[in-house]
Amino acid sequence: MTNSPIGHRRWAFTAGNIPARGSGPEPEFTSRDELCILNAGSADACAAVTVYFADRDPVGVYRIMVPAARVRHVRINDLIEPEAVPLTVPYAMVVTCGAPIVVQVRRLDTRQSALALTVDSGMPG
Amino acid sequence: MTNSPIGHRRWAFTAGNIPARGSGPEPEFTSRDELCILNAGSADACAAVTVYFADRDPVGVYRIMVPAARVRHVRINDLIEPEAVPLTVPYAMVVTCGAPIVVQVRRLDTRQSALALTVDSGMPG
Amino acid sequence: MTNSPIGHRRWAFTAGNIPARGSGPEPEFTSRDELCILNAGSADACAAVTVYFADRDPVGVYRIMVPAARVRHVRINDLIEPEAVPLTVPYAMVVTCGAPIVVQVRRLDTRQSALALTVDSGMPG
Amino acid sequence: MTNSPIGHRRWAFTAGNIPARGSGPEPEFTSRDELCILNAGSADACAAVTVYFADRDPVGVYRIMVPAARVRHVRINDLIEPEAVPLTVPYAMVVTCGAPIVVQVRRLDTRQSALALTVDSGMPG
Repeated sequence: MTNSPIGHRRWAFTAGNIPARGSGPEPEFTSRDELCILNAGSADACAAVTVYFADRDPVGVYRIMVPAARVRHVRINDLIEPEAVPLTVPYAMVVTCGAPIVVQVRRLDTRQSALALTVDSGMPG
Repeated sequence: MTNSPIGHRRWAFTAGNIPARGSGPEPEFTSRDELCILNAGSADACAAVTVYFADRDPVGVYRIMVPAARVRHVRINDLIEPEAVPLTVPYAMVVTCGAPIVVQVRRLDTRQSALALTVDSGMPG
Repeated sequence: MTNSPIGHRRWAFTAGNIPARGSGPEPEFTSRDELCILNAGSADACAAVTVYFADRDPVGVYRIMVPAARVRHVRINDLIEPEAVPLTVPYAMVVTCGAPIVVQVRRLDTRQSALALTVDSGMPG
Repeated sequence: MTNSPIGHRRWAFTAGNIPARGSGPEPEFTSRDELCILNAGSADACAAVTVYFADRDPVGVYRIMVPAARVRHVRINDLIEPEAVPLTVPYAMVVTCGAPIVVQVRRLDTRQSALALTVDSGMPG
């Protein structure tokens, strides 16, 4: 066990595709992909997200501040600067940070009325 | 192959959010997050869990004893000392242990009547 | 890229709990946990599975032969020698092999009529 | 953090089994396994997929071009050269590439009318 904060400085997720529809009361059951970023360190950190597509150049970076000793769950739909991430298209994400962070993606799909949930551990590297 | 017990001494899980509701007979179908901790070693081990939130300081540590050569599945809702983990808020966990352990998280979500199940491998580090 | 077969010699999975019930035609929709073992090497391999419980000694080893250049999906319910793995109790597995193998667990839960599916990457070590 | 493109040159996935049926409008809800390949590098890359079975020799390689700075989601059902991958049988995949890539598998199962979704991080090696 080391005393350094747990985490890595770079993460990749390749299986993104945000449903455009859902069922059940919003916002609880809105279909979504969420970036779940833990900063277990003692200084605030800024994660930078680049989004990749099948047929055009990458977009980004989107900046997400994560204070020291906090976790943030950020809906991809809330990433609007420099531009909104489109729904129903394949996408991937690379998340980089100057400090170690731990990133996972939580996907909720309510298109077919009984929800599907998956947590994607991604790849540190 | 090594002869040391399989595992790592530190694990992180960032995608926590325990549903407050469920459907189907309890306790079998109660929505839950469970820590699944394997101690494959020959001595008892004590895992220490710190819980991180979005908007307040971390809480912990919660202590979980895992006897030698045993697995324990512990519902997060059963972690009440020093304080109960709240439902329906984003949270993360870091699990540390003086001995190698293997930790995964099993999430059962029955809010929408047909259950969703995901197993989250977390990040050792 | 190396020329050695892909894989590791030891794997752990901690989140096991086989449902006793299911819905839909059997055997297609029988709730199950399956070990999915790939032997990408050029020699047959024998995997040895030890099953861990919360409140009694581990059971095993269960032996699973995987021929060269083959994958095998084995239902945990079909592991009956030295004894059947019980349903509806928490369990963990450690899989060891003299040659590199890749192991994942596929869990199908049909208790609530619309199936849940998760694939668990486990921990090599 | 390194400046080299994120990824590995070899990936394995062992839990494949493509459902033959689904429910809901096609193609959105067609049961499927998808390879999700990110090439974050600055040169085009060619991934080579070998498919393993339980009872016959491996088939492949299937070639998938991934342009620089692009992600591709490819349905396994669309891999038809040298031959189609059969449905409803256990299979595994090894993906290799001369350049670093990140690969995950997205599985959608709509057999029982409310979809199940899982993302499988696979094993780099």
